[in-house]
Amino acid sequence: MKIIIAPDSFKGSMSAAAAALAIDKGFRRYMPNVQTVLIPVADGGEGTIDCLIEGIGGVYNSAIVTGPLGNLIEANYGAIKSGSVAVIEMACASGICLLSEDQRNPLLTTTYGTGELISKALDAGYREFILAIGGSATLDGGAGMLQALGMRLLDGDGEDVSWGGGALDKIVTIDNRGWDPRIAESRFLIASDVQNPLIGPEGAVHVFGPQKGATPVMMNQLERNMTHWADLIEAHTGMHLHDKPGAGAAGGLGGSFLAFFPAKLQRGIDVVIEYSSLRQHLIDADLVITGEGRIDNQTVSGKTPMGIAQEAHKFNVPTIAFAGSVGKGIELLYDVGIHSVHSIMNGPMPLEEAMKQAPELLEQASEQIIRTLSIKVSSYLV
Amino acid sequence: MKIIIAPDSFKGSMSAAAAALAIDKGFRRYMPNVQTVLIPVADGGEGTIDCLIEGIGGVYNSAIVTGPLGNLIEANYGAIKSGSVAVIEMACASGICLLSEDQRNPLLTTTYGTGELISKALDAGYREFILAIGGSATLDGGAGMLQALGMRLLDGDGEDVSWGGGALDKIVTIDNRGWDPRIAESRFLIASDVQNPLIGPEGAVHVFGPQKGATPVMMNQLERNMTHWADLIEAHTGMHLHDKPGAGAAGGLGGSFLAFFPAKLQRGIDVVIEYSSLRQHLIDADLVITGEGRIDNQTVSGKTPMGIAQEAHKFNVPTIAFAGSVGKGIELLYDVGIHSVHSIMNGPMPLEEAMKQAPELLEQASEQIIRTLSIKVSSYLV
Repeated sequence: MKIIIAPDSFKGSMSAAAAALAIDKGFRRYMPNVQTVLIPVADGGEGTIDCLIEGIGGVYNSAIVTGPLGNLIEANYGAIKSGSVAVIEMACASGICLLSEDQRNPLLTTTYGTGELISKALDAGYREFILAIGGSATLDGGAGMLQALGMRLLDGDGEDVSWGGGALDKIVTIDNRGWDPRIAESRFLIASDVQNPLIGPEGAVHVFGPQKGATPVMMNQLERNMTHWADLIEAHTGMHLHDKPGAGAAGGLGGSFLAFFPAKLQRGIDVVIEYSSLRQHLIDADLVITGEGRIDNQTVSGKTPMGIAQEAHKFNVPTIAFAGSVGKGIELLYDVGIHSVHSIMNGPMPLEEAMKQAPELLEQASEQIIRTLSIKVSSYLV
Repeated sequence: MKIIIAPDSFKGSMSAAAAALAIDKGFRRYMPNVQTVLIPVADGGEGTIDCLIEGIGGVYNSAIVTGPLGNLIEANYGAIKSGSVAVIEMACASGICLLSEDQRNPLLTTTYGTGELISKALDAGYREFILAIGGSATLDGGAGMLQALGMRLLDGDGEDVSWGGGALDKIVTIDNRGWDPRIAESRFLIASDVQNPLIGPEGAVHVFGPQKGATPVMMNQLERNMTHWADLIEAHTGMHLHDKPGAGAAGGLGGSFLAFFPAKLQRGIDVVIEYSSLRQHLIDADLVITGEGRIDNQTVSGKTPMGIAQEAHKFNVPTIAFAGSVGKGIELLYDVGIHSVHSIMNGPMPLEEAMKQAPELLEQASEQIIRTLSIKVSSYLV
């Protein structure tokens, strides 16, 4: 009897690791000797480095890089697989989490620091990269990152343009003569759940602008600038990012990876699964437990529990999911391997209390579910 | 595969029958052809007649009797077992549910109507009685019931005293010459979960007075009167009800049954079980589902889920319980046959919303639990 415990974080109340521990603890209340494997999972956003390193082992590296508004910051990146693969979270260098609410201004914020992180990792010898690009503060189309790696973006006077989405319209020439040659020797796996194109009503500016601090007036300017930038990239590389799915990820950083890097975009959870120990454990697992703060009809589109269940399903291992909140439409999940979904609530309570008590609630619910699972009668049921 | 669905009511939101239906519906979402037996259960309080009649068949009889404050009301009583057993709820004639908040006054409220119901049932030929005595509005020590059945309670002038706990101190003589002789030919099974004695700090007045509308001043008077009444009964029958467990049930009605009737007090749920079809179905059942609005460490003392689980345990059938709210201390329940306890909540929400949505929540939770139960792995677990 082997159970894989692979939850995502319960946002605002528990990290993925804390959730996995709570489930394990709940199971052990009833079955002290149950064999469990804890694989806390991130979906390619914040926490991806931690998840991978905690899951399969690895090291943290630290670098001083440029923050989203030009100030210097310390940012971590990870290395897994005996140091053969670097794991970079763009949010560590260019994330919205680094700014206060009133600092958010996508006219100015840059992905330059993300480029520097890649550069430092290249210096350190890495040629295989995982890039988790969720949570960006930027709408610069990845221009800053390109500049940090030797691409010159020049205005009409032949001067380097400044940082931020507000400067993209100044770019007249893309000068790639200084472009870091090590990039062509490398592989970049981009973990992203965003399917938005670069331009238009479903594009990077219109969909993600507001949460990055863009006012309606800024939005118009940013959309014009991003279109200009997309046109330039197309002229330079032949790649039409305007309506390309995923190009709008991380304020257009996704597009830059597609246009200038040997890069592959992949659903975050699939990247994490590929580099985790999940598959090797699924071979002889009897059950998978996953979970997330909320599970509903949105879960089907690429969220962690979904990805975990799909993978488990390939190995014919059933998955049970826990959630703080279980919404409508979970029938969709049954077809793809989630066998049942249980809320961790133990009674009526306000959200704040549920968040505060989440680890204890998850532990309790886990104990009850393993108790129910252990009822002999279930063998008759299948 | 046969599942017995035997919940209590979820107070304020679902009758026992509605709860049983919701569970059944949830199960059928996943297993349309599952064999279920619905045995909604009451614990001997309100709803006992309905439960028994719905469960094993029977008829309703109606009678005009005296309400708790002397007005005439229509009250039902049931007949089960091909009309051989009458089921009387004292609450139908003398219940607190018949009064508004400001009408509650245990100095005046009487059990006279309950006596009349018994008398009418005797007239109709019944000699075997189940009496559910929960939910009384009275603290008259059962005096009114005795009067309705021919017992004269006389004051110093040889006059019949008036109704209510406020008149008990006027009684000087218990004159049983008119006492209905059919009572001695009958059997009375009194369903009551109350273990309180008649007198003292744990007695009928002090424990139940406030909820029946007694003010602190009334309480002193009522306790004096009840003591006088207990003394008189002892002088008349030799039975010392003062500290007799159960004598304080239903404002002392329990004591009157013990002193003047061929009566046996039994835990409500056990009475219901004895007369339900539970046992016959347990013989070949695989699983029992029970439930109640709240399940916690109090559940162990005679509540429905407890009684159901204990009975199922005798037949080696595991019980799963649902509750709106799952409190502390449920470990106590494991030893007595409740295998697991699941809240029906699907996320954080206020109590009122939970109450309103209870049937849908219970249906959802039931579906998820049968899904989890059906996971094959569970056969490894036992």
